[in-house]
Amino acid sequence: MSTEHIVRSFAQELLRLSNLVTQMGGVAEAQVEAAVKAVARRDVGLATQVMQADARLDAYERDIDAEAVRLLALRQPMAQDLREIVSSLKIAADLERIGDYAANIAKRSLALAQMPLVRPAVAIPRMGRLVETIMKDVLDAYTERDVDKAIAAWERDEELDDLYTSLFREGLTYMMEDPRNITPCTHLLFMAKNMERIGDHATNIAETIHYLVVGTQLNLARPKSDGSSFAVVSPIQLDGPDAQVVEESDTGDNANDDAM
Amino acid sequence: MSTEHIVRSFAQELLRLSNLVTQMGGVAEAQVEAAVKAVARRDVGLATQVMQADARLDAYERDIDAEAVRLLALRQPMAQDLREIVSSLKIAADLERIGDYAANIAKRSLALAQMPLVRPAVAIPRMGRLVETIMKDVLDAYTERDVDKAIAAWERDEELDDLYTSLFREGLTYMMEDPRNITPCTHLLFMAKNMERIGDHATNIAETIHYLVVGTQLNLARPKSDGSSFAVVSPIQLDGPDAQVVEESDTGDNANDDAM
Repeated sequence: MSTEHIVRSFAQELLRLSNLVTQMGGVAEAQVEAAVKAVARRDVGLATQVMQADARLDAYERDIDAEAVRLLALRQPMAQDLREIVSSLKIAADLERIGDYAANIAKRSLALAQMPLVRPAVAIPRMGRLVETIMKDVLDAYTERDVDKAIAAWERDEELDDLYTSLFREGLTYMMEDPRNITPCTHLLFMAKNMERIGDHATNIAETIHYLVVGTQLNLARPKSDGSSFAVVSPIQLDGPDAQVVEESDTGDNANDDAM
Repeated sequence: MSTEHIVRSFAQELLRLSNLVTQMGGVAEAQVEAAVKAVARRDVGLATQVMQADARLDAYERDIDAEAVRLLALRQPMAQDLREIVSSLKIAADLERIGDYAANIAKRSLALAQMPLVRPAVAIPRMGRLVETIMKDVLDAYTERDVDKAIAAWERDEELDDLYTSLFREGLTYMMEDPRNITPCTHLLFMAKNMERIGDHATNIAETIHYLVVGTQLNLARPKSDGSSFAVVSPIQLDGPDAQVVEESDTGDNANDDAM
């Protein structure tokens, strides 16, 4: 076996690994889209499908992990090749987590479908469209190894955080108006939080793409800030959406890089 | 330079990497403990400290990632050594995320400290004690490479899920009793969810320890199930904690492995 043959074969193996990540990204994207659709249409069958299909993403992650470790052991890669493999491990972990959030949105949609429709529900498809755009752009950026596209997607995550914070406050207000809104709005808040977290994992992937292509950590000022952590909404008027909203100024420290 | 010297020096480098992970674990554990204390004592100063200290965990993760990639490139490790390095990458990612959740708990405690005390708040220190025990056991299991201890901690995560589900329902009930409870109880629900997620990341670490020591994936039936996703609480009696709680039976599929 010539050295050239071994080299070419390793390139093929790396391409195969990268294709696995791309496929997994496609499945994760479809899961998020279907989960959002299940909420919007109150479609219990679709929600159940999303919950069941989550196992596919777990299997993808296991395959990618096993393949990455195998290549690390057999090929002892350096530089760009090593970054390819480490990046596939990191991106697969983010996609698996995105799948968990999609499955949780689908699961909560089952509870929500049993309850009266509440107005803040319209914000879910709106957040959904933005999440889907960000995910699509990040996954295209991965396929094309396009750092600029990755950074552009990374920056749009801020819009998602803003949508989440506004839904959070709106949800609290509706809960104060009528106790029958409390359970459905609480599920909506958790769904919205799930979407905000999907956006965070998409930005993680964008950062990994930067590391993969450029070889260094992305070093931009973090745009994200989950303002909901500071929301203080008091029920001054209970018969209208005019509850008092007090919000502290954000301190801009690292805790803004919120996990929840 | 003799081969023996190189081998010994690699062992030292692996030990150094493992010690970094252990140190990072100690910091993450302290962050969780301080965040829970900040909630229980309504201690704004302590909460602020936790939010600021989160940057330390981000720095640890960057250092561990860089060191792991350096060792992969220079040492081209096999078998157990390779697993040590891959495990350090995975555990550092889980610990960083645990730190984010602790910081978010601390941040929400600032909002909570401005509001009247609500009864479900007592559940936070209770969940906190269990989370701290699970984290301590998992980190000890890592230091001692003790798979049995890791599995025992992994199994206790179910208790945490049960506490979370019961707090979720109790919180909804209190919100229905009095609209002034809505905002503080919503923050409590998100804090409790953060703790449940910290438990999930601790079980991820337990699984990584199994892979590290045994060389295969942990293959036990997953005990966890976040029942909150199915909670349907209706405000039948608004003047007491007797709101109707309906809960669907859990389907036991993969979506139980909840992200949120």
